[in-house]
Formats: sequence, structure tokens, C-alpha cells
Amino acid sequence: MNKINIAEKFSLFDETWTPKILAESNGQLVKIAKGSGELVWHKHDNEDELFIVFKGHLTLQLRDRNIELAEGEMFVVPKGVEHCPIAEPDTHFMMIEPATTAHTGEVESQVTVAADKQQWI
Amino acid sequence: MNKINIAEKFSLFDETWTPKILAESNGQLVKIAKGSGELVWHKHDNEDELFIVFKGHLTLQLRDRNIELAEGEMFVVPKGVEHCPIAEPDTHFMMIEPATTAHTGEVESQVTVAADKQQWI
Repeated sequence: MNKINIAEKFSLFDETWTPKILAESNGQLVKIAKGSGELVWHKHDNEDELFIVFKGHLTLQLRDRNIELAEGEMFVVPKGVEHCPIAEPDTHFMMIEPATTAHTGEVESQVTVAADKQQWI
Repeated sequence: MNKINIAEKFSLFDETWTPKILAESNGQLVKIAKGSGELVWHKHDNEDELFIVFKGHLTLQLRDRNIELAEGEMFVVPKGVEHCPIAEPDTHFMMIEPATTAHTGEVESQVTVAADKQQWI
């Protein structure tokens, strides 16, 4: 493996809500994605999901509150907790989660990217 | 859990090579540390170790090459691979690794912080 420049990787794609895989570590995948607008409500029954925002603003809607993440802020959505991300246009964020994590959990939506279709970048 | 502002957490301590725990996710700990100068050669037989640099410059010496990490760059040191970090003064970095990971692997040095002595911040 070589070192990874995170900003350079973000410059290689424009699609939103389409995680790209940067690295694997201890069975977890380090992914980056761009967001804009709202994704869908979903949960991951068996996986915690770590979010770190690199640019823009990401709102993680939970059923009981909203988590507002600006650049340089992070949050772990615990397994089983329903969430729905909303991003300002051109928001860049990282997710770290087990390789088994389904993109939109138990929900199949138009934007869902199957785990075996998520690409390395 | 609440959201975490990473820069704010870095502002809370000055010690070098003393990882502080920010979060737990899927049995792995998200830690931040400041570095300055050289740590010690060591390895982790069973754990990959993910490094992300937030400020400064971190050199991960491996036995066959050096990995040079500037701000916004990351690298995974695979399990079993000997490494020795060298940091420019006031370098800030994040590590993500299993809770079982010993600070300086099999090596006990003056700077070693035992896993059960690593503090949440």
C-alpha cells in the first residue's frame, strides 16, 4: 500500500452518495463520499458507522435529534440507530465501517450502491 | 455520544506520543496524538494501524522505505510490519486501531503508555 492523499482522492469523482473505498484496516473499510441533499432513513443492525467531515456541512438526522457536523467534526452512529444524512452541496466526508456494511442498511432505494459495487479509488 | 470537534480535542493537551481516545467504533478506538521527534521501532502482530495526519509532518519509517505523511494524508501500517514514527514538532495525527493494540507493540520503552492507561479526552 502507498500513502493516500485524501483531498486528491476527493478530486477524482463528482457523484454524490456514492462511497469510494480508500483503504482496508482490520476488516473495516475507509471510504470517502460527497453528499448533497438528503439520502434516505436507514440503519445498520450490526455495524457502527464513523463519519468525519472534511468539507461542507453534514446533518445526521437521528429520530430524537440532529447531529450537525462541520469541517473537522466527527460522530459515530451506533449500530441499530436509524439515521438519515443531509448534506450541503459539495460536502466531503469519510466513513469508516466494516466491509459488511450495506450502504443504506435494510432500505433499498434508487441511490443505494450495493456493497459489492462500491469501488476502490 | 455527542459530536466531536477534532481540532478542539487537540487543543486540550500538549504531551507528545501520548494517544488520547476520542471514540469507539466496532471495537476499534479512534485516538489522536501529538508527535515530535522519534518514537521507537515496534510492530503490532495482530492489528493494522491507520494513521491520518491533521497538521505537520509524520514520517513512518518502515524497514524497507519511509512513508512521508503531510496534512491530509493517511496510511495503514499492516499488522506485523515494523515501524517507527518520526514527527516534526507539533505534528497532530489520528490513529484508528483495535482496542487491544499495545502502544509500542512488543517493545516497552520510556514513552510507552499502557493500553489501560490511555485516556479518553
